[in-house]
Amino acid sequence: MKKRQTLVAVIGGGQCSPQEAELAEKVGCEIARQGAILVCGGLGGVMEAACKGAIAEGGTTIGILPGENREEANPYVQIPIVTGIGYARNVAVAKSAHAVIAIAGSYGTLSEIGHALQSGISVIGLNTWSLARDGETDSAIIPAEDAEDAVSKAIKSITSRYSK
Amino acid sequence: MKKRQTLVAVIGGGQCSPQEAELAEKVGCEIARQGAILVCGGLGGVMEAACKGAIAEGGTTIGILPGENREEANPYVQIPIVTGIGYARNVAVAKSAHAVIAIAGSYGTLSEIGHALQSGISVIGLNTWSLARDGETDSAIIPAEDAEDAVSKAIKSITSRYSK
Amino acid sequence: MKKRQTLVAVIGGGQCSPQEAELAEKVGCEIARQGAILVCGGLGGVMEAACKGAIAEGGTTIGILPGENREEANPYVQIPIVTGIGYARNVAVAKSAHAVIAIAGSYGTLSEIGHALQSGISVIGLNTWSLARDGETDSAIIPAEDAEDAVSKAIKSITSRYSK
Amino acid sequence: MKKRQTLVAVIGGGQCSPQEAELAEKVGCEIARQGAILVCGGLGGVMEAACKGAIAEGGTTIGILPGENREEANPYVQIPIVTGIGYARNVAVAKSAHAVIAIAGSYGTLSEIGHALQSGISVIGLNTWSLARDGETDSAIIPAEDAEDAVSKAIKSITSRYSK
Repeated sequence: MKKRQTLVAVIGGGQCSPQEAELAEKVGCEIARQGAILVCGGLGGVMEAACKGAIAEGGTTIGILPGENREEANPYVQIPIVTGIGYARNVAVAKSAHAVIAIAGSYGTLSEIGHALQSGISVIGLNTWSLARDGETDSAIIPAEDAEDAVSKAIKSITSRYSK
Repeated sequence: MKKRQTLVAVIGGGQCSPQEAELAEKVGCEIARQGAILVCGGLGGVMEAACKGAIAEGGTTIGILPGENREEANPYVQIPIVTGIGYARNVAVAKSAHAVIAIAGSYGTLSEIGHALQSGISVIGLNTWSLARDGETDSAIIPAEDAEDAVSKAIKSITSRYSK
Repeated sequence: MKKRQTLVAVIGGGQCSPQEAELAEKVGCEIARQGAILVCGGLGGVMEAACKGAIAEGGTTIGILPGENREEANPYVQIPIVTGIGYARNVAVAKSAHAVIAIAGSYGTLSEIGHALQSGISVIGLNTWSLARDGETDSAIIPAEDAEDAVSKAIKSITSRYSK
Repeated sequence: MKKRQTLVAVIGGGQCSPQEAELAEKVGCEIARQGAILVCGGLGGVMEAACKGAIAEGGTTIGILPGENREEANPYVQIPIVTGIGYARNVAVAKSAHAVIAIAGSYGTLSEIGHALQSGISVIGLNTWSLARDGETDSAIIPAEDAEDAVSKAIKSITSRYSK
């Protein structure tokens, strides 16, 4: 029987700049290279670029879709999960992952960061939200310098968490 | 036929300090005084204190519960909505409201703030999260000075939005 | 403090025949007359007719909507709950009710019947599905003769269940 | 790039008889043999037996879990999707599949049958529910004689639907 695999989520905007897409694609590549499955929201922008990168490296991609139709998945999603639950699928994207990499993103990404942190799942950030509460910086989001650093930190956070 | 009513959500921790509870109770009172229905996640802490305040002023309280059982609602919830969808019910709390008042709170509250802002619903903040992205402050959360100020700003945001 | 109230769900098609609408309207009237709050999926057809009946008798109506926008509620919904979770909101309609009255309906109604019975909530049927498993009739759906009979049986099922 | 794959769902009770488990295991084997991915609710009973069969034949198994924790997945689930949305995940199980095979089952299975049929997804039945509405038999559930027949009918229903 195949061993259960490590899932890393990539979250970010459904629309993004060329620079963000390039970064996401590198993150996707790196996830595949480091042997993890990529899970994401399955749509365009950062999600599509990350899936494209993972596929290019022979990886596996899962898209947890908000709508009723698998046709809304980007062309690089191999396994579309059709939830029909709209933005509430953000919860499933976050919770299905062993670690989450957030690339830029807007308020939808913020909600996923919230769901992940609430569940005790590590969030690695690339040019994304920073948080403060009551005037004090919250350091829960782990900053990364580039794609490789982000994926290494994601995998490391998993190893240290699940080997305890 | 009764006119459809204004719903204001109160979000915040399921556990909270006595000061936060006092603030939440005042917010609940004020929501009832200003003629709106209070909607919340239906559990303890900030949610319970806000419901208690609204009830004391003769208001109406709705609790959108995460679990399978209406008995998990705090005793001041008049209308429990039993979703069974766990933290994904945060989406419904945010989207059901015309405006959202966030009181302190942790990562669950952060996810609700994300869902509300994504839907274009105003969020008024009392000692809660502040956000920055890529080094720049995001001013989407409208700060309030006290309970009365928060509810007035919530109602005002609704009036200006829906009268356009 | 107001006592927590009894909620009765009416489920059925978003489109329906004039006869089904007439029946649903009578059921809505009767729910209001017998002092319960009406909860439904908030859209047209059987849901709208039932809300219309409840409002005509001075009752309260809650619509648990599938989409992202409260404007999709029928005009007789006083309290729209905006879930954004699509058909998964059927679970919340069923679980929020103390008892469910099913009027005719198609496969969406069948899914709500399944969710209600799974939760141990009584389902009263008016011209709706009948079930058999492995060749044997399943008698979980309680048949009713007319609107008044359906609501009386719904209220009775609640009383006998919650007074134990 | 790998071609997007066919997903077949197996639905049925979280607890089941030895005969039902044997049948489910054969169905899982056959799904893998016929080259499809198995998707299910990820728990015990029929779900576990089907996953066990698929794995034995070198197939791929996805479990769409109701709870907050991937540890609730049965040991034969390779890719656990953690939704945290409780029984509302039944919607995602049904909608993610190109075709659904129902084995025996109780009211939860009934709700999944409803969600699948509502979405126009074929349901193949093995010793499961039969439906009638308003006194007339509903023939939407396609009966199968054994595991091989069920999977063949599932695959055939997909081919005829998606080749149009």
